[in-house]
Amino acid sequence: MTDKLRQDAEVMIKRIIAENMPGTSVRTALEAHTFTGNIYLVAIGKAAWTMAKAASEFLGDQLKSGIVITKYDHAAGSIDRVEIVEAGHPISDENTIRGTEKAIALAEKLGDGDELLFLVSGGGSALFEAPREGISLADIAALNGQLLASGADIVEINMVRKRLSKVKAGRFAQIAAPAKIFAVVLSDVLGDRLDSIASGPAAPDLATVEDVQRVAEAYKLSLSELQKRYLLDETPKEAPNVETVITGSVKTLCESAKSAALELGYTPVVLTASLNCEAREAGRFLAGIAADIKSGASSFKAPCAIIAGGETVVQLKGAGKGGRNQELAFAAARGLGDLNDVLLFSLGSDGTDGPTDAAGGMVDNQTAGKLREMGIDPARVLAENDCYHGLKAVDGLIITGPTGTNVNDVAVLLCR
Amino acid sequence: MTDKLRQDAEVMIKRIIAENMPGTSVRTALEAHTFTGNIYLVAIGKAAWTMAKAASEFLGDQLKSGIVITKYDHAAGSIDRVEIVEAGHPISDENTIRGTEKAIALAEKLGDGDELLFLVSGGGSALFEAPREGISLADIAALNGQLLASGADIVEINMVRKRLSKVKAGRFAQIAAPAKIFAVVLSDVLGDRLDSIASGPAAPDLATVEDVQRVAEAYKLSLSELQKRYLLDETPKEAPNVETVITGSVKTLCESAKSAALELGYTPVVLTASLNCEAREAGRFLAGIAADIKSGASSFKAPCAIIAGGETVVQLKGAGKGGRNQELAFAAARGLGDLNDVLLFSLGSDGTDGPTDAAGGMVDNQTAGKLREMGIDPARVLAENDCYHGLKAVDGLIITGPTGTNVNDVAVLLCR
Repeated sequence: MTDKLRQDAEVMIKRIIAENMPGTSVRTALEAHTFTGNIYLVAIGKAAWTMAKAASEFLGDQLKSGIVITKYDHAAGSIDRVEIVEAGHPISDENTIRGTEKAIALAEKLGDGDELLFLVSGGGSALFEAPREGISLADIAALNGQLLASGADIVEINMVRKRLSKVKAGRFAQIAAPAKIFAVVLSDVLGDRLDSIASGPAAPDLATVEDVQRVAEAYKLSLSELQKRYLLDETPKEAPNVETVITGSVKTLCESAKSAALELGYTPVVLTASLNCEAREAGRFLAGIAADIKSGASSFKAPCAIIAGGETVVQLKGAGKGGRNQELAFAAARGLGDLNDVLLFSLGSDGTDGPTDAAGGMVDNQTAGKLREMGIDPARVLAENDCYHGLKAVDGLIITGPTGTNVNDVAVLLCR
Repeated sequence: MTDKLRQDAEVMIKRIIAENMPGTSVRTALEAHTFTGNIYLVAIGKAAWTMAKAASEFLGDQLKSGIVITKYDHAAGSIDRVEIVEAGHPISDENTIRGTEKAIALAEKLGDGDELLFLVSGGGSALFEAPREGISLADIAALNGQLLASGADIVEINMVRKRLSKVKAGRFAQIAAPAKIFAVVLSDVLGDRLDSIASGPAAPDLATVEDVQRVAEAYKLSLSELQKRYLLDETPKEAPNVETVITGSVKTLCESAKSAALELGYTPVVLTASLNCEAREAGRFLAGIAADIKSGASSFKAPCAIIAGGETVVQLKGAGKGGRNQELAFAAARGLGDLNDVLLFSLGSDGTDGPTDAAGGMVDNQTAGKLREMGIDPARVLAENDCYHGLKAVDGLIITGPTGTNVNDVAVLLCR
């Protein structure tokens, strides 16, 4: 039965990855959209090249021209009618500005009958940036440092930074007007807030001038006169020329897991697509669910697949090797040891979990016992954050190679 | 709507507690059982008095005689035909032995036509103990210390300790034979392993002589000749004269939450009755589920009640005041802040969560915002383990007073 569970898990993993590749996501979005004018393209983020390539193949001659701004070494060749700029990530550089200014120039010349296909993926905040007149990347970095040092959180930092940008916080959509924008978004942000993904170049900004002033005062920011003036410029509160579709996200990752489970004969249950707690504790929580599917105390009945998507965190205390998905799975293994016919895997959609060559981990009711037989104490492996080696010893690593997408992680508990 | 949710939560809490009181649990068990002989009673554990009182009232003259062994200050008056002994907990003392020897004497004189009603509750391991001939409580304490110092876990420690007892590990059932035993158990052990609850006086012992020898060797225990001999005495591997019913446990706690939710119009889902991860991470996990009930990405649809029973743990880092249920609820509050019509409570069935006068905590989507308005930073409260004061500030403490039962905890997420 364990073999059957492993086979099913491997089928699920292949399908989850395949359905969430950027190209697949873009084609799905384009098939459902009717373009009404000349089509231009701007693609930003780590998956920009793959998304643009798929769009170019889908649109053919309909695509007039476009620009891709992606991370160094993330372009894999030329794309017809599309200029490709590679730039710094996670730190913006001169190429970032050069690429972004080209995108601005493209957007500025669009007219009423034109339509801009805007492809957005994770990493877009760094890769799509042109500071406002008189502001440099160094100014922004210095302000960032001030905010971090004074204890501001990421929402507050972005609130301030967006005001110093020509394109963030809905301003890129304003530049492209009156042209319509069709934004196709691969989200790497839990909850899919459009003003957060890539800092929302084509999304209304939720923060007001008052919010920003409050942050500036709370953290006693030291600002130049120009910066002060920019902070008082209100950002767009609507984006009437934009239609947005989130075509890939941790939600679609969960949906893929769900449909794959269903086809394999498991009743699927998606608990959440917002898992953000500690990886090992999520693993223990899921193992507790497994115990009571078996005891009958849970509302879920086998065969079932319990699915939780999101992005957990790891507190590094040991000097071992691992990643959040490996740690989640490994931590669950101890709780599965007394059960039968259970398997749990946790998978990072990007195929690279932590600083390892694994996409995640897979464990079942035999994992903890096998480790002990080999003289490996599971508790010690966890204490050392060394789940990569713990899983490797029992053939529990999921290896996919880098996948080219990043829509967070999904953990699946299979019970038969 | 928040008011409605609070009202519903309060109805649920009252009902959950009422249905899981030891008296209620005992009456339910006795109503379903047919006694066939003269009835005698032995009640052990922290709820022993309450359980025996309910049994005495239910059985009336049918009850011939009995003995209660409970913790100091846990008896609330006399019970007809029942002797009451109060003793040390969590450390056994001379009264423990005196009471246990009386129970042994009672069990020894039982014959074929007699039936022993054995009422078991949490705390029974310490409260029901008579060391074997030639062994003292001090000897057992010393052995315990050796095992702890050498890194043995609780299962291994109990495995060894049970062998030095006249009554643990199924031996009390042997003493009572040929009389039948009807054991009514209130479980405070996740998973309800009968050999674990009160060290299983009337349950077959799962550990063998070989298991015990392995532990003795692994930890290089220093043992007297007598102790060595006792470790070689096999414990009962069956208990043919015993019928056991677990009439209260965290599973019944979850069932009570489930039926109360259903009556109030919420679709109930019991995730698990084995929650044993960190309290705050369980709270964050549940808040993630709430977010996706609202986003539509979860399989659960409002109105629903998501139920998780168990016993979480708290890592004390700060110097504040709180308990695991308060910490679970408080940690969830931050994740609920952006939602509508959600409430989460976590409740310790004993009414005393941590070293506080609260039974647990209750939060909703307004909790985190209210705290911030009062100048209280939720993250800081959590860092200080000070959830009691954090919850108190926003009327979020659940106060029931000590309830007299202990069947772990239950957390409930209500979404409308």
